[in-house]
Order: sequence, then structure tokens, then C-alpha cells
Amino acid sequence: MTHTNYKVKNISLAKNGKLKLDWAEAHMPVLMLIRKEFVKKSPLNGLRVGACLHVTKETGVLVRTLKAAGAEVFLCASNPLSTQDDVAAALAKEGIHVFAWRGMKRKEYYWALKQVLNAKPNLLLDDGGDLISTLHSQKPELIRDVFGGQEETTTGVLRFRAMEREGALKIPIVAVNDTPTKRMFDNVYGTGQSTIDGILRSTNVMIAGKTFVVCGYGFCGRGIAWKARGMGANVIVTEVDPIKALQALMDGFRVMTMKEAAKIGDIFVTATGNISVIRREHMLLMKDGAILANSGHFNVEISMQDLKRISKNVRKIRDNVEEYTLKNGKRLYLLAEGRLVNLAAAEGHPSEVMDMSFSNQALIAEWLVKNHKKLEPRVYNVPEEIDRRIARLKLKSMGIKIDKLTQEQKNYLFSWREGT
Amino acid sequence: MTHTNYKVKNISLAKNGKLKLDWAEAHMPVLMLIRKEFVKKSPLNGLRVGACLHVTKETGVLVRTLKAAGAEVFLCASNPLSTQDDVAAALAKEGIHVFAWRGMKRKEYYWALKQVLNAKPNLLLDDGGDLISTLHSQKPELIRDVFGGQEETTTGVLRFRAMEREGALKIPIVAVNDTPTKRMFDNVYGTGQSTIDGILRSTNVMIAGKTFVVCGYGFCGRGIAWKARGMGANVIVTEVDPIKALQALMDGFRVMTMKEAAKIGDIFVTATGNISVIRREHMLLMKDGAILANSGHFNVEISMQDLKRISKNVRKIRDNVEEYTLKNGKRLYLLAEGRLVNLAAAEGHPSEVMDMSFSNQALIAEWLVKNHKKLEPRVYNVPEEIDRRIARLKLKSMGIKIDKLTQEQKNYLFSWREGT
Amino acid sequence: MTHTNYKVKNISLAKNGKLKLDWAEAHMPVLMLIRKEFVKKSPLNGLRVGACLHVTKETGVLVRTLKAAGAEVFLCASNPLSTQDDVAAALAKEGIHVFAWRGMKRKEYYWALKQVLNAKPNLLLDDGGDLISTLHSQKPELIRDVFGGQEETTTGVLRFRAMEREGALKIPIVAVNDTPTKRMFDNVYGTGQSTIDGILRSTNVMIAGKTFVVCGYGFCGRGIAWKARGMGANVIVTEVDPIKALQALMDGFRVMTMKEAAKIGDIFVTATGNISVIRREHMLLMKDGAILANSGHFNVEISMQDLKRISKNVRKIRDNVEEYTLKNGKRLYLLAEGRLVNLAAAEGHPSEVMDMSFSNQALIAEWLVKNHKKLEPRVYNVPEEIDRRIARLKLKSMGIKIDKLTQEQKNYLFSWREGT
Amino acid sequence: MTHTNYKVKNISLAKNGKLKLDWAEAHMPVLMLIRKEFVKKSPLNGLRVGACLHVTKETGVLVRTLKAAGAEVFLCASNPLSTQDDVAAALAKEGIHVFAWRGMKRKEYYWALKQVLNAKPNLLLDDGGDLISTLHSQKPELIRDVFGGQEETTTGVLRFRAMEREGALKIPIVAVNDTPTKRMFDNVYGTGQSTIDGILRSTNVMIAGKTFVVCGYGFCGRGIAWKARGMGANVIVTEVDPIKALQALMDGFRVMTMKEAAKIGDIFVTATGNISVIRREHMLLMKDGAILANSGHFNVEISMQDLKRISKNVRKIRDNVEEYTLKNGKRLYLLAEGRLVNLAAAEGHPSEVMDMSFSNQALIAEWLVKNHKKLEPRVYNVPEEIDRRIARLKLKSMGIKIDKLTQEQKNYLFSWREGT
Repeated sequence: MTHTNYKVKNISLAKNGKLKLDWAEAHMPVLMLIRKEFVKKSPLNGLRVGACLHVTKETGVLVRTLKAAGAEVFLCASNPLSTQDDVAAALAKEGIHVFAWRGMKRKEYYWALKQVLNAKPNLLLDDGGDLISTLHSQKPELIRDVFGGQEETTTGVLRFRAMEREGALKIPIVAVNDTPTKRMFDNVYGTGQSTIDGILRSTNVMIAGKTFVVCGYGFCGRGIAWKARGMGANVIVTEVDPIKALQALMDGFRVMTMKEAAKIGDIFVTATGNISVIRREHMLLMKDGAILANSGHFNVEISMQDLKRISKNVRKIRDNVEEYTLKNGKRLYLLAEGRLVNLAAAEGHPSEVMDMSFSNQALIAEWLVKNHKKLEPRVYNVPEEIDRRIARLKLKSMGIKIDKLTQEQKNYLFSWREGT
Repeated sequence: MTHTNYKVKNISLAKNGKLKLDWAEAHMPVLMLIRKEFVKKSPLNGLRVGACLHVTKETGVLVRTLKAAGAEVFLCASNPLSTQDDVAAALAKEGIHVFAWRGMKRKEYYWALKQVLNAKPNLLLDDGGDLISTLHSQKPELIRDVFGGQEETTTGVLRFRAMEREGALKIPIVAVNDTPTKRMFDNVYGTGQSTIDGILRSTNVMIAGKTFVVCGYGFCGRGIAWKARGMGANVIVTEVDPIKALQALMDGFRVMTMKEAAKIGDIFVTATGNISVIRREHMLLMKDGAILANSGHFNVEISMQDLKRISKNVRKIRDNVEEYTLKNGKRLYLLAEGRLVNLAAAEGHPSEVMDMSFSNQALIAEWLVKNHKKLEPRVYNVPEEIDRRIARLKLKSMGIKIDKLTQEQKNYLFSWREGT
Repeated sequence: MTHTNYKVKNISLAKNGKLKLDWAEAHMPVLMLIRKEFVKKSPLNGLRVGACLHVTKETGVLVRTLKAAGAEVFLCASNPLSTQDDVAAALAKEGIHVFAWRGMKRKEYYWALKQVLNAKPNLLLDDGGDLISTLHSQKPELIRDVFGGQEETTTGVLRFRAMEREGALKIPIVAVNDTPTKRMFDNVYGTGQSTIDGILRSTNVMIAGKTFVVCGYGFCGRGIAWKARGMGANVIVTEVDPIKALQALMDGFRVMTMKEAAKIGDIFVTATGNISVIRREHMLLMKDGAILANSGHFNVEISMQDLKRISKNVRKIRDNVEEYTLKNGKRLYLLAEGRLVNLAAAEGHPSEVMDMSFSNQALIAEWLVKNHKKLEPRVYNVPEEIDRRIARLKLKSMGIKIDKLTQEQKNYLFSWREGT
Repeated sequence: MTHTNYKVKNISLAKNGKLKLDWAEAHMPVLMLIRKEFVKKSPLNGLRVGACLHVTKETGVLVRTLKAAGAEVFLCASNPLSTQDDVAAALAKEGIHVFAWRGMKRKEYYWALKQVLNAKPNLLLDDGGDLISTLHSQKPELIRDVFGGQEETTTGVLRFRAMEREGALKIPIVAVNDTPTKRMFDNVYGTGQSTIDGILRSTNVMIAGKTFVVCGYGFCGRGIAWKARGMGANVIVTEVDPIKALQALMDGFRVMTMKEAAKIGDIFVTATGNISVIRREHMLLMKDGAILANSGHFNVEISMQDLKRISKNVRKIRDNVEEYTLKNGKRLYLLAEGRLVNLAAAEGHPSEVMDMSFSNQALIAEWLVKNHKKLEPRVYNVPEEIDRRIARLKLKSMGIKIDKLTQEQKNYLFSWREGT
């Protein structure tokens, strides 16, 4: 690796990016511990890693770790609005092949994906599934170089499972998204906080006293709903799944159809992994001044098409706030163009929570290298021992001690004969 | 069925028991709807059902429903302290063969189990696993009459999975406990409320301002911890599982070892499914006046043996409160003799939550009859369609409407080609 | 005092009552400390104290303390349904002149008041204002013996302030109710918990998932609303005061008129200190199965008259639960006959919180004796030093240490010249 | 008023400032309603208003309203770090005499105060008390022109009450800070949210799972503690007042001395109105990585002097984050130089909450003009009718309807004769 290919906004932002990376490293103790090991063992020595991730300071810490493990890393953005340009610059300067800048056009976005694929990566880290989908649909000739991939989002895992069902999947994928130390922490606690953060930074509105509608009560939606309540909102949940709807009710939230919620909400956040969750029929019912935001992976949850069609005027009122004046005279405020509000309007998940998600990614990279010959082209779960190891390291880094099973307890749990 | 065999405390309590059953039926709309269907279809016609359950008003509603489906029902208690004697009397009067009274001795408890098994039941409903274990260990000759069984607790499911692993399981079991409409509601919301209720009824102590230690952060422990916080306690969680420990931390609780917690707790509740969670070494560290309660299935979580050994005096101070004066001079207050505090000191789960658990049981009984010939001697999950049907009925009974997937959304979710 | 006059339900209940009193004393450390002092100093030596209080185990601890201070105590019940008969018996046996039993008729209630007044008390402890009102209206000749009175409820203080405004008040009254260590703790935390407790004991319904309407967002209403939310309810607040209504909104609750709330509530609790808060027009709108309870002092907040008038049938369904079948066919469930649900259906406030309220009463009794000659016939606040002393003792009893102001800090706070 | 005197950072920022002001006006419906009236009635016609306030978009809406009422307004900043330069520019352009920019030096700060005083204002709006203190200490000759002043902070009101006690106060002051629609909303809900916001924007750390220490449990501290818990923190409160300490305990928080809290906290926020709340002895005990922030009015709550003295190195790590490396090797992170973190690192209180505080200020300005001849040089409370009027307008703007007292209820409340 004598030369770093990259395309970033401005390489001179690197100094500030480095400070951000340092700050993140101070809050990602588990990944730093893993890096130490990787430096010793070089588990990715000589391999090429292609990553399509939100280019944030936390991703930077992961990418530095992969490099420390011996890999050459090619990085593009998994979302056109989520790149932190200073971090991208710092990584480029350190020898990471970064192709990412905030505000990429659709064409540029796919151009960047291809730069990464063209490097013939052996391992793929994906966030939303675009990198691996593109590999399958447009660069099938590169598949034979790939040991396996990892996917970080619910959305992406759904796509790969669909591909597996149809026999279209050609590489093993580890569903990092689904593992407890990722899903329960990143999705619930990370998304919860960073969504509130994104709304505050973009609007500065009072959350207390507002009627706050959360679309979807999966792990992400749950995190958002609880934090919104924690900030004093009166929260309404909409769902299509009767079991999740019941959970929301039992957790003290109101549950109703989107059509009912549309009339009374002050702030709406989507977190469903689905399309057109807020659409024309809902927008027309909303109150003047309603705020719309999305925390799902793709910017399809709020129908931009519908919103534009029913509007007579659009203007930018603040960073990440666009005012849509509808033909009916009401004004709706769309945050971050309907993209992930927590990444586009804030800084994404806090480092502490990404520490766990990305520690999974680092250890899974190692695991794929070791095991790829035995693996089939399907979606795998994270091995339980990796998950538990991360949890134990995290507790340790927080100074928390927990109990251990006594021998009597082990016997009791594993033998049905002990009984009553 | 010309004659009802039964043994209850006092048959003349039946009138009051009937009022309780009526009250429960008014709060169990889903099960009542299922009963209506069962009356028409008689799905259990001519069959014998053996049930080992907490003999509460809600169980009564289930048992009435099974009878309405055509079954002859034999009922014993799954816990010596949880029987509501008036309900037992009312059921006996209505033709249910009940063998249960509050305060059964160990010997009587097993005698009652055997009365139920001796009836040669075709279906077994178990809560804790004692009925089905006893069938295997002591009445193996009756196994051939059994279509299958159902188990309602985490503890019991653990036992049957262990039996399955060892090849000892001889009948198909449906793990009703594990299905979302049971586990997520009964364990979390039911146990949460009824544990607080049991503590309040037995002690009337102020929860606010107390240091409240919850042992175990599974579904039950989580429910208890959240409700204790909701009542104003400062909650500490102890765990052996690093992932659950992290969740507790992220939910804002303190996490520490039991040895640390023992020194500072005012109220301790166990909900682990394990044995000797609070034992000698912990009791000796506790503050004068500490209160000990258990919400796990068996009365083994607090070591009674240890407590007795280190005490110099015991006296009953209130219903369900025993004062143990330790040799070190401190007084510990044990609730409900270490048995399920929510059942022994309160009335168990509210009817609304049992509505879901017991609707599962009713529908699974029907399902076992229909499918038993295809089933193997292993632990089955509740079929997803049954679970979702119950959730939908429950929402309907609460007057709640939720969204449906549009065609566009179905396409999006199930096809990976739609992509970005 | 050679002979104890008393009228209780059954003197043989005394043994059980004594256990209750012991349990309460173990949870009232501040009052016990004060008792120790009183035993030494006999501050009420030779005086007669008349008390109209809820005759609970906690009141018993207060009354024992007053007796220990040298007083002869005459006690009647401030509510016909709140007397704990075993405690009354125990007190009678110890030499307190008790005239109270659960389920007193109106006539008996006033008879008991007069027994207390006829003893020519020097100090009056009132809870609701009936004792002192009766003194003024029916026994004015006894006023000259009275050093002063104390009032424990918002309701009562309102009455005495009205009397003061009209020049009708003839004795000094200390508004114990209004002092922070009473109002903020007893009303908020005590009423909050004990109201939930009363609802659970009487109905055993699931709180989670219910729409829970709290009428009034004063200290009591606030306590109830927060605890109901803490148990998983979706809470609606009704108010007449715009500032309190705004607070409820900002705390995340829904606020609406009673007419709107009536249609959607599952459980209603009044805590306003006012009359006919739930009345005919609201009852007619309610859902079948709605539950009505009152936590305000008098049983006038839910209009019993209206409820009876629109009903065609009433039956008792459980202890403290009456089913009213309206002429429109719907069933409403009234708890504890509309009396204080926390006292009538549970055990009233926990000992820990009464510890503070009653420590105020004990110290104010001493203060009235010392200061009565200087006092005028008006409503006084509790002297701040008494209030703070109680708070400090309470913290100490809980093992809590707090910071002290440094000299620099005292200077800073008290001198405006320090400035920026 | 032919010429606007001003000094701002950059007048060309006005366009952006205007957008901010528009956004704020859309969220301040009560103040906008008052402005409408003021335009009609010109209650401040020909008067000069001097204001020392945080120069934010919300202050801009107030200042526009005062101008619309006919006043000439002179505005300086009440904090060197809280000025939004674009808003300052927009106001200057609209004819407000603004002397404020972010990052003023101490000398510049006092220079700006004097520009305002030199305009010989008739009304003074103060936030922290510096303007009115300076008037008294350095420009006593201008006092005769002053009708009265208003003070917006706890800190300032404490100063003026001290001055009143010493006879040093020469003008009437209205303690806007103390009125319910200010204190209960601005301090509790405003400070709560904006403090969390300031911490998130400056650090992006995870709040969930952190030990969060709040110094002071007054209105502000309470708001912060509840919101921190709402975001998943485990919250510790420190206090010097035993009653507030007890409230914190009963609200479920841990309470301890600062020395104990110092050892275990991850994030510290001061909100006491006092000096040196976090000082050398505490800093030396803190964990590596601890974060320190202040939400009290003055930057004296965290002793900067002590922090500098015990540090060997300081560097800026992010906007509003300085890393102090202590001589003991540990790193402490100070936010916003110890100034109000909610204003310096975020945007201050949300518009919705300032709507109420500033509506008070607008109406009090009118009230002072009408009543100043009757007033004495002392600290007045906001007249209750103004407070209630604002609450009613706010509810109306939120579309909330509340109940009204019936005639029966009014009679009941105001007559003690109705009784039981």
C-alpha cells in the first residue's frame, strides 16, 4: 500500500477530524482493547476490507482497528448526508481509502460504492445492504474474492434474508445487526438518544408537553418512544404488528392508526424499516407546524414524493429544517430531508454504544477470515461467545462487577431432576 | 361425569368464589370470546384434562372454558400457598375436580398431583413442571394416554428442555411460557405489578425512597425493576448474565454483585429461576429491617435453610410477614415464606394479563387435540398464528385499531430488489 | 386518669393491633426519637389532647407519643371507614380514650366527636376540620380551654382560612398540612402510593395499559398521576387551575375537560378537595366497566347522589367494590363507597411518610403549649425550624449525609456585593 | 429614533438571524398575541427600555414586542458566551440598539452594560442582576429616570432581596423569576431540556448508563435530574437543604455529599445559584474522563480557579469542551468554560418555554408603567392575575380546554359552613 486513493471534501480538515477520533477512542474502550490484540496478532494481514458505513468518528475508530489488524481498508458512505468531512479527511490522511463527503449526489454515491468494490475486497462491511447488493447485481465477477460480509441494519438483514430465500445470495453474511450486544444497545439506546439529539439540534423545540408520534415499536422505535417520554412528551405509537402494539400499550403509550395520530401529533418520527409510512393521506390531516423526522435507515419512510406533490412552497428555515407550505395552507417541517435525523442532524450514535456494535464487527471480521471456508452463502448469526465476550469487556470497562453462578446453581439450572 | 371428586378447604365459600370468577370474566374478554367458540365446537369433547396451576380466579376462568369445550377437568395447585379457597370451592361446585387448598403440606401437595394423574388425563397443563415430571418419574404407565402437555413457566420449560436433551421426555410439550403474548405480558407486566402489590399488601412499607434490589433482569425481573422505579424506589439489579447486566445499566439501574447489594438494600426481590440466590453470606451483610421476597416460581431462590440456620428467633408479625432475628441481632423480614409473593401475598397476576396467557392455553389445548398424532416428544413453541390471533383479539377488546401494511409496503418488505 | 373510657369494635383485637403498632414504630424513626425526648421532658404534662384522626397504626404511634409526653388523649375517627379496629382496641387497652370503629354511621360519627370535645381538651388535632368546626358551632363554651389546634388536610385548612376571613375562628390553628415536610411528602408520595395500593387491593385490575384519569393536579393528584404512570397507565389529568393544567401537560400527561375524559377513562380518581367533581353528566358518558375512586378527604368528590339516581341496580362484587348498573345498561364500579380509597381499601399512608407528618404534629403540640399565650385566633404556619429539624432527623434515620454550606458560600448567598 | 447605535459581531448575519426570529415567533404564540395588543395600545410609547438578557432568538421576540409597544430598546448581553450573533445582527438592523457579541471579554461586557445605562432607560429588564447592580453602584444619578426593573433569575432575585434587606435598593423590582408561569416552566422544563441538549451537542456522549450528578435540587436541578433520568442516566443529587434532599430521595434519586459523589460520577452539572460547589477537594477525587458542566447563572459554581491550579495541561478538544489534565494524571472535561451549558453549548431554553417567561416580562413592563408611581423600592411579586392570564393563553394556544368551577363548587370551596 504505497498510495492512498481517496476523495473527501477537504483534506485540510484532517486535524479537526483527528481530535474527533481521539475523543471517540476515549469512549470506545472495548474496541480499543480489541485493537491492542489485533496489533499483536495481525488477523487481517494482507486482506482488503470494503466498508460502506456512516463515515463518523466511531466508524473511524473501527476502520483504524481493521487497519491495525493488517488490512487495507476502502471506505464509502452508507448515506449521502451522514459523512463527517473532517473525520473522512483524517482517515484519508492516515492511509484509509475514503470515498465520502457530506451531500453526495445519488450518482456520486454509487460511484463511491464502485470504488470500493473495484478494490476487490475480501471482506465487506455493509450498513443498509447497498454495497453487497451492488456486488451481486453489478459486479458478480468479484464475488469469488469475497470471504463474507457483515450487515449492520435491520433493513439490510431483511434484504439479505429475502435474497437467501430466493437463492440469490452468493456469499455468507453475518447479521451483526441481530446480535444482542448490537441490536439491544445500538438500536434501542443509541437510536433513542441520537434521535432526540437530532431533533433538538435541528429545531430546538420543547419536547415536554408535545404530542410525539413514533411510527414503529421495534427496537429503534421503542428506544425513541421511551426517550421522548423521558423528555416530557406525550407519546403515541403506531404499529402494524399486534404484539408490538400491545407492548406499547402496556408500556403506557397510546396506540392508534397513523390516520388518527396524524391529526394530533406535533412531532412525528418514523422507525419502521418500511416505505411510505407517512404519506399524502396523513400529511393532509396534520396540524400547522407539525415536524417530520425519520430514524429508519432509508429516506423512504416519509414519502418525499407525496410531500412535494401537495406543497406549494419549500424553504430552508434552519440547518436541517425545511418548511413545506401545503396547498391547504398548513406548514410542515421536514428534518434532514427525511434522511436519518440522528446522523444527518446530530452525530449519530454515541461512541459508547457504537463501541459494542463495532467491536462485534471487528471480531466478526476476524471470525470470517478464520471460518470462511466452512461457510455457505447464507445469513449467519453472530456466534454467542463473541457476543458475550463483548458484554463482559464492556462491563469491565465501566467498572461493573456481576455475580457468577455457584456450582449448586449450575447443577440446578441444568438438571431437571432437582425439581421442587 | 356424574360425580365430582374434590377436596377443598370449605365448599360453602363457593358463593364468594363465584363473585370472584364473575369479576375475572369481566376482565378476560379474549378468553371469553374463545369460550363462545368452544361452546359451539366442543373441541375437547370427551377428553380429560389434568391441570396443575395456581388455583386463582383467572385459572377458574380457563378451567370453566375447558369444561365448556367438552372436557372433564382435574385441577390441583401448583403452589401450596397460592390457592384462593373460595374459587376452589366454586369450581368444585360447578363440577371441576379440584384438589387444592391454601396451606397444603408437602405431602398433601403431592397427593393432589396424583389425584389428577390418576384420572388418566389426555392433556396436561402445568405451571412449574411438577405434574409432568411426576408423570414421568412415578406414573410412566399413564404416558400413553397423554396427547401432550403445556408449560406456563420459565422454570418448567427449562426442566423439560433438559429432559429433552437427555432423551427423558416422553410427551410433546408446548412451551406456552415462551410465546410473546405470554412471556412479554405475563412475565413483564403481570409479575411487575403483582410483585409490588404483594409487597404492599404484606408490609405497607413506603416504596419511594427505598433501595430496592431485584435479583435477575429477565422478563420478570425487568417488570419488577421498572415498576419499583415507577413507585419511587432506587433500584439495584444483580445478574449473572453480562448482556442482561448491560441492559439494566443502560436502563438506568445500578448493577452490582449481590454481596455489594446486600449491604445497602432495603427490599430484596428474587426473580431468577435459580436456587440460593440470596444465601447466608448475603443475609449476614444485610441491614436491620431488610425485607426479603421472592417472585420466582419455586421457593428456593431465598435459601430458607440458611435463613433459619443463622436466626435465633422467628415470629409472625403480620399476615405473610415473618420476622427472623439473626444471631447478629439484626432482623430480616421474610414475605410469604419465600414463596411467590405476588400469588401468596396478593392475588397473582391481574385478570387482564392472564387473559392472554390462558387464551394461549385454551387454544393450545385445541391445537394439541388436532395435531397430537403428528407430534414428537419434544418441546414445541406456540404456533405464531395463535399468538398473533390472541394479540389481535386483545387489541380489539381494548378498542384499539392499528395500521395495516399497504400493498406497496408488503412488496417493499419482501423483495430485496426494491433496495434504495 | 384512673379509668379509660372507650368504644371500639372488639377489645379482644388488641393483640393484633399491638403487633401492627410495633411494625409501624419500626418504620417511624423520627417520631420515636421525639418520643424519647418527650418521655424525659413531659411537655404535655397534665394536659388533655383531643384528636380526630384516621385511627390507623401510624396514628397510634402518634397518640402513644402524646401520652408519653404526659397528656391524656381522647381519640375519635376522622372518617367512618378508615378505622383499623385492632389498632383502636390496642390503644384503648393502653389507656387511650378511643371512640372509633370501622363502619360508623353518621350519627355515631358525630357522637364520637362529642365524646372527645366533652373531655374539655386543651389541644386539638384535626384531620378534615370536623372536630374544630363542631367545637365552634356546637360547643363554643369549651373554646376557652383550648390552647390551639392543628389541621392535617388541605380541605380542613381551606375551611379554617375561610373562618378566619369571616372572623369566625376563635382559636389559633397550625396548618400542619401546609408545611413542606408534610405537604410534599404525605400528599405527594404517601397519597400516590396508597391510592394505587387501595385500587389494587380492591380490584386487582391491571394498571398497565389502562387509561387512568386523575382529577386534580395539586400535591395529591400529582403523586397519584406519577405513580399511576409508574405502574404503566396512560394518565389523563383534569384541572380547573390553568397553571396546574400546564404543569401536567409539561409533565407529559394529557389534559382535557372531565367531559372528554369521562368517555375514554378506565379508572378515575378524584383528588381535588372539591365537591361533585364526577357527577351525573360525566357518569352517563363513561364506558361499561369504568372504575371510580376518591382520594380526597371527603366523600363528596364523586357525587353519590347522582350515581344512585341514574342506577337501576347496585351489588357488592368484592370488598370495597360496588357495581352500579346504570339505567343505560353500563356498569360503573365504585370503590370504598367514594370514601378515601387509600384508607378505606388499603392501610392509608405508609408509616415512613406519616413519620414526618406526625412528627410535625408532636412537635407542634409542644410548641402550642409553649406559645399559646402569644397566639391569636388565626391560621399559623409550622415554624420553619421545626420543619427543617424533622427533615434532618429523617435523613439521619435513612443514613443519608448531605453537604453543608461553606463560609464562602454563606457569604456569597447573603451578600449582593459579591456579584459577578 | 433616527439612528440605531449598535455593536455586533457582523451585521451581515442579519438575514440568518431573521429566519431564527421567525422560527421563534412561530413557537411563541402567547407573546405574539400580546404583541398584537401592544401594537394597538402602544403602552410603552416614548419610553426607553434597557435590557441585559441572553441575546437569543427568543429574547429577540420579546425585544421586538417591546419595540412594537412604542419603546426604544437598548440591549446588552447578560452572559459573554450566550449571544447568538446572527440574532444580534437582525435586531440591530431592525432598530434595536444592541451591544452584544459572543465571546465578549469582561471589560467589553461592562462596557456594553454602560451603553445601555447611558441611554437613561425608564424600564430595566435584567437577567442575573448585573444591569441593576451596576446602576446602583456606578450610575446612581440615573436612578430617578427608572420606573422599575424586572429580574429573571433566582440568582438576581437573591441579590435584590439582600439589597432590600440592607436598604440599598432604590427602585421597585418585579421578581419575574419567582412567578409560577416562569419558575415552574422555565426553570424546571426549560433548563432540564436545554442542559441535556448542551451536554449532547458539546460531547455527544451516551447519557444512558452514566452516573449523572446534579448539584442542587431546586427548580432547575429538579428539571435536570428528571430529564437525565429520562435519558437513561443513573442520577445522584447533592444538596445542602434537608427538605430538598428528602424530596430527591423520595423521587428515587440517590443523595449523598459531593465528596462521595465526586468519586463515582461520570457527568456533573451544577444548578445551585451558589459559589464553588465543585472545588479542588472534589476534583481531585474524580474519575479519569469525568465531565463538568454548569447550568447555574454565573460561572462560579465550578471553581475555575481551583481547576486551573491543579491542572498541568489544558487543550480544547471539541467546541465547548476543554480537557484539563490534572497533575494526578486524570483528565477532566469542562464544558463551555463553566458558563451556562444550556446557553453556551446549545440554544438556551426552547422558544415555547420562553414564551411564558417573556410574556410575563412584556406584561410586567406595561404594569410597571401603569403602577410605578404607587411602588416602593422593594422586590415585588408578579400580580397573580398576570400569571394566570398567561397560563390561560398558553393552554389556548395548545388547543387544551380545562374545566371550570361550577357554582356549587365555588360555594363549597369558599364557605366553611358546608363542611362534611
